[in-house]
Amino acid sequence: MSDERVIYLPLGGAGEIGMNAYVYGYGKPGKERLILVDLGVTFPDMDSTPGVDLILPDIAWLEARKNDLEAIFVTHAHEDHVGAVAHYYDRLGAPIHARPFTANIARRKMAEHGHPEKAVRTAPVWPETVTAGPFTVGFAPISHSIPESSGLVIDTPKGRLVHSGDFKIDTSPGVGEPFDHALWEEIGKHGVLALMCDSTNVFNDHAGRSESTVGPEIEKLVASASGMVAATTFASNVARVKTLAEAGERAGRSVCLMGRAMRRMIEAAVETGVLQSFPATISPEEAKTVPREHLMLIVTGSQGERRAASAQLANGKYQGVRMKEGDLFLFSSKTIPGNERGVIRIMNQFSEMGVDVVDDSSGLYHVSGHANRPDLETMHDLLKPRIVVPMHGEHRHLREHVKTCKPKKMKGILAVNGMMLDLSASTPSVVEYVETGRTYLDGSVQVGALDGVVRDRVRLALNGHVSVNVILDEEDEMLGDPWCEIKGLAEEGVSRAPLVDVLEEDLAQFLGRAGKKTRADDAKLDEELRRVTRQSANSEVGKKPEVTVIISRMS
Amino acid sequence: MSDERVIYLPLGGAGEIGMNAYVYGYGKPGKERLILVDLGVTFPDMDSTPGVDLILPDIAWLEARKNDLEAIFVTHAHEDHVGAVAHYYDRLGAPIHARPFTANIARRKMAEHGHPEKAVRTAPVWPETVTAGPFTVGFAPISHSIPESSGLVIDTPKGRLVHSGDFKIDTSPGVGEPFDHALWEEIGKHGVLALMCDSTNVFNDHAGRSESTVGPEIEKLVASASGMVAATTFASNVARVKTLAEAGERAGRSVCLMGRAMRRMIEAAVETGVLQSFPATISPEEAKTVPREHLMLIVTGSQGERRAASAQLANGKYQGVRMKEGDLFLFSSKTIPGNERGVIRIMNQFSEMGVDVVDDSSGLYHVSGHANRPDLETMHDLLKPRIVVPMHGEHRHLREHVKTCKPKKMKGILAVNGMMLDLSASTPSVVEYVETGRTYLDGSVQVGALDGVVRDRVRLALNGHVSVNVILDEEDEMLGDPWCEIKGLAEEGVSRAPLVDVLEEDLAQFLGRAGKKTRADDAKLDEELRRVTRQSANSEVGKKPEVTVIISRMS
Repeated sequence: MSDERVIYLPLGGAGEIGMNAYVYGYGKPGKERLILVDLGVTFPDMDSTPGVDLILPDIAWLEARKNDLEAIFVTHAHEDHVGAVAHYYDRLGAPIHARPFTANIARRKMAEHGHPEKAVRTAPVWPETVTAGPFTVGFAPISHSIPESSGLVIDTPKGRLVHSGDFKIDTSPGVGEPFDHALWEEIGKHGVLALMCDSTNVFNDHAGRSESTVGPEIEKLVASASGMVAATTFASNVARVKTLAEAGERAGRSVCLMGRAMRRMIEAAVETGVLQSFPATISPEEAKTVPREHLMLIVTGSQGERRAASAQLANGKYQGVRMKEGDLFLFSSKTIPGNERGVIRIMNQFSEMGVDVVDDSSGLYHVSGHANRPDLETMHDLLKPRIVVPMHGEHRHLREHVKTCKPKKMKGILAVNGMMLDLSASTPSVVEYVETGRTYLDGSVQVGALDGVVRDRVRLALNGHVSVNVILDEEDEMLGDPWCEIKGLAEEGVSRAPLVDVLEEDLAQFLGRAGKKTRADDAKLDEELRRVTRQSANSEVGKKPEVTVIISRMS
Repeated sequence: MSDERVIYLPLGGAGEIGMNAYVYGYGKPGKERLILVDLGVTFPDMDSTPGVDLILPDIAWLEARKNDLEAIFVTHAHEDHVGAVAHYYDRLGAPIHARPFTANIARRKMAEHGHPEKAVRTAPVWPETVTAGPFTVGFAPISHSIPESSGLVIDTPKGRLVHSGDFKIDTSPGVGEPFDHALWEEIGKHGVLALMCDSTNVFNDHAGRSESTVGPEIEKLVASASGMVAATTFASNVARVKTLAEAGERAGRSVCLMGRAMRRMIEAAVETGVLQSFPATISPEEAKTVPREHLMLIVTGSQGERRAASAQLANGKYQGVRMKEGDLFLFSSKTIPGNERGVIRIMNQFSEMGVDVVDDSSGLYHVSGHANRPDLETMHDLLKPRIVVPMHGEHRHLREHVKTCKPKKMKGILAVNGMMLDLSASTPSVVEYVETGRTYLDGSVQVGALDGVVRDRVRLALNGHVSVNVILDEEDEMLGDPWCEIKGLAEEGVSRAPLVDVLEEDLAQFLGRAGKKTRADDAKLDEELRRVTRQSANSEVGKKPEVTVIISRMS
C-alpha cells in the first residue's frame, strides 16, 4: 500500500462562523499537494477589534507551502467565503476557480486591488470538473441564500470527499438551482469517504422553510401599506431582492435599489444570466419624484451597519429620499448575533419619525439559508459518508453536529481551525496541530491578531492615555517641569484640581526625590514615571491610564 | 379654579430600557413640590462607552430643585431602578422610601458609599401610605421577577396617578405576592387620572407565562442529568433561584450558591422574611468534596459578564470547582440584546470542555418578568385611566404602547426623557422640554456623556495614538529631531520602514520648511504638526491617529 494520505485542515471557519478557509491535501505526509476551499473574511466589532477593517484567516502555514498549492475553489460569493481572495492574492498566487456569478464577484474584488482578473477562472458545473494536481473537483449546485452556491465533489485517489459549502434544502429557491435530491444521491452512490458539512443551524430542530414561502407574505404586507415602503435584506440574497421587487411591482409601486452592494449584486446576477427577469427599477433621482404610496425602496443595511442605506434613511435621508410618518420599513432578514444594538438603534430612529417597522419576529418575512438539523440528516442520508466533519460553525455547533452522527454509524470528527485530519487513515483522526489565527486588515496594513496593536487600542479605550514629557540636561537635572497631556480621562478628579496639574505635581515631586542613578537611566526613569503617573491618576480619578513617556536629554 | 398642576417628567427610562428616574410634581407652574420614582443605572458597553463603570441619569435639573424634592420612592430592587440612589445621595439628599426587601438592598448600597443607612425608610404596603408634601404614595404589590415589586398609587389633589413599575400578571409567582386583580380593580374604582405603564414587552402578543410553569421543566431537566449541574439566572430573581435550588434538592443534590450577588440577594430575602423556605446550601469549599452527580451549582453571570461565576467556570474553575465532560450548564434566563457575544463565548467554552449547555431557546426554562401586550391591556382595563403614559421602553415600545390606547378611548401620550407633561391640563400634553442625558461613572469620577472624555477614548480605540515631541530653542530653532511614540498602530506600513521613523522624518522635513512665524506660534505649530502626523500615518498605514503634540521651548 502507498503511504499517500488525504488531509483536511481548516484555517478558518471551524470553531467560528466566518472567514472560511479549508485546506485539502493529497500525497505523502508533509509532501501533500494542496487545494484551498474558500477564502473569506470576518467582520470586526468594537468589543475586541476596534478600528479594524476586516478580519482574515492567518494563512502563514499555507503561504509557506504556496508551491504546493494547486488552486483555490470558492463555493459561493458570500464575504465569509470569498472576501479575502484579493487581499491574499499576492501571498498565495494560486488560480481561483468559481462558477460564473461567484467568479464575477471575485473578479470585481481582484480589479479593486489591481490584481489580474484572469486569475479567476470560471468553473463548469458538475458533472464537469476541474483538475488540480491529484484532485478532481466538481461544483455541484446546492441551494443557499445566494445564487450559484455549490457543494464541491472532490475526488482523490483515495476516495471521494464532499464539501457541502453553505446550504439549505430548498426545492423552490426562487433564483438559482433548486436542491436536487437525485443529484446528491447520485454523487453519493459510489461511496463518500468524508462529508465536510455546514453546521450553522444544527440547533434548529424543525425542517427548514423554502424561500418560496416568504413571497406571498411580503406581497400581502406591501399591498396593505399606505405610505412609502422600504425593505432591507442581505444584498447578496438575490432571490429575496427579487421577491421584494416583485412585491413592490405587484402593488403598483416603482422599485428603487439603494446602496452600492445592492446594485452591484443585481448587476452581477444580470451579467451572469443568473437573474433573467427582474422588475424595472428607477434611480434614486427618479424616486424623489414618485408619490410615496407608489414607491418601494430596497436598501442595504439589514445588520444596522452605520453607513448603509437603512441607517442613513433612519438618520434623515439617503440620496435625497426621506421616510416619514405612515411609511413602512421591513427587515426581511435576521439579525446576526452581535449586531442587535445597531439594528435596534435604527428601529428606534424610525419609530421617532413615525415609520412603522416590521421585522422577522413573526417568522413570516425571512427564512434562513442554512440547513436545519433534519435537513442536515437528509444530506447525511443522501451521501452516506463514512466520515462527517462538521464545519461552518462555532464549537458548540460542531459538537452538536458530531452527536447527530452516532445513531447512523457515521464517524463524526470534531476538528477546529488548525487541526489537521488524516481522512484516509484506517482510524481517521487529528494528525497535527497547525498554528492558526486571525490577521487584521487595519487601515492599509495586515497585522497579526497577537501583535498587540489592537490590544493596545482596547486598553486606550478602557483606560485613557497620558503623555508625559520630561527634559533633562547633561547633568541629568530637570530642565523645567514635567509636562502632561491627557486624552480620554476626566479633566478633574477627587481633589477638584485639574488632573494634569495633579499629575505634573506628583511627577515633579518624584523627580525631586529620585536619585541621580534613576535620572541617568532611561529605562528605569521611564518605568518609574509610568508607575507614578498611573498611581497618581488612579488616586485622583480611579483609572490607571496607558502612559507614553518621552524623556529628552539636552547634551 | 387653582392653577396648580400635576406634572410628570422622565429623566431616565423613557425612550430606553434602563436608568429609570421619573419625576412627579404638584403645585403652581415652576413651583411644584416634587417626588422622584426610582433612580437606576444602565450598563456600559464597548461600542459607545468603553471603560465606563456605570451610566446614570443626568439629574442636573432635579439637583437645581433639590429643595423642592420631598422624597425618592423605589419600586423594586433591580439595578435599573435602585442602582443610582447611593451615587446621587450627596447631590439630592432626599429620604428614600422602599418596601423592606428593596430597602435592605438600598441600605447595603448606602453603606458601601459611607452614606447613612437611615436615609432609607421602610415603607408600609398599600392601603397604608407615605405622605410626601402634596403627595400620598402607596406601595401596591405587583408581580415581577424580583420580590416585593410595587406599583405606586400616587394621590394628588388633582387625582390619582398609578405608576405601574415593572410588572407582569402572574398569579403564582413562587416567591412574593401574586398579582391581585381585585386589588388593582379597587385601586382603579374611584378613577385614575393617569397610568404610567411598563412597556418592555408590548411587542409580545401572547399572554405572559407564570413563573410556576418553569419549575416542573427545570426539575425534569435536573433529574435527568448524570453529571454536575450548574444553572444561572439573574441573582435578583429570587423565585427562580429558589426553583432551581428545589429542583436540585428533589434530585438529591447538594445546592451551592456561587457569586457574590447571588448570595447577597438570598441573604436579603431571608433577612426580610421574603424568602421563608429555601433548601439547605453548602459552601463552595464543601462543594469540592461532593460527588459531581450529587451537586447543583446556582451561579451568577447569566449575561456572560466576564468576571461572574459562569464565565469563570467556563474559563476553568471557580472557587476550586471545575466542570467537565458530561456536566450540564443551564441558562435559566434570556440574553439581553447586546450581551449575545459574551453569552455565546461561554457556551462555546463549555462546549470545548464537553459540558452540555441548555438555554431558553426551547422556551421551557425561563419566563419574562414583564407584561406582554394582552397583560398590559388587562392592566388598562382594571384601572381604566384617563391617560396612559408608556414608560420603561425604547421609543418603539412607547409608540406601540400608545397605539394600544386608541381603541379604548384612553389618551396615550408618548413622552421620552426630558418631556414634561401637564397631566392635569384639560388637554394633557408636553409643556416643557428639559435637558436630560447621561452621566458616566468613570473610575471614581462622574463625567457628562457629552464632556468628550469617552468620545476621546472611542477615537483612540478606532484610530490609535501618536505622541509628538518637539523642542525649540529661544530662536525657535529645533533642538534635535522631532520624536514620536505610537500606541495602537502598526509598527510598519507600506514603505516597510518603522512607522515612527517615517513620521519623524516627515515632521522634520515639515519643520525644516516651516517659516519662523509658524515655529514661534504654539497653536499654529501644534495644528500643523498634528496635520502632518495624521497625513503621514494615513499614507503609511491607512489610519489617521489621534495625536498629542508637546512643544517644549528652551529659554
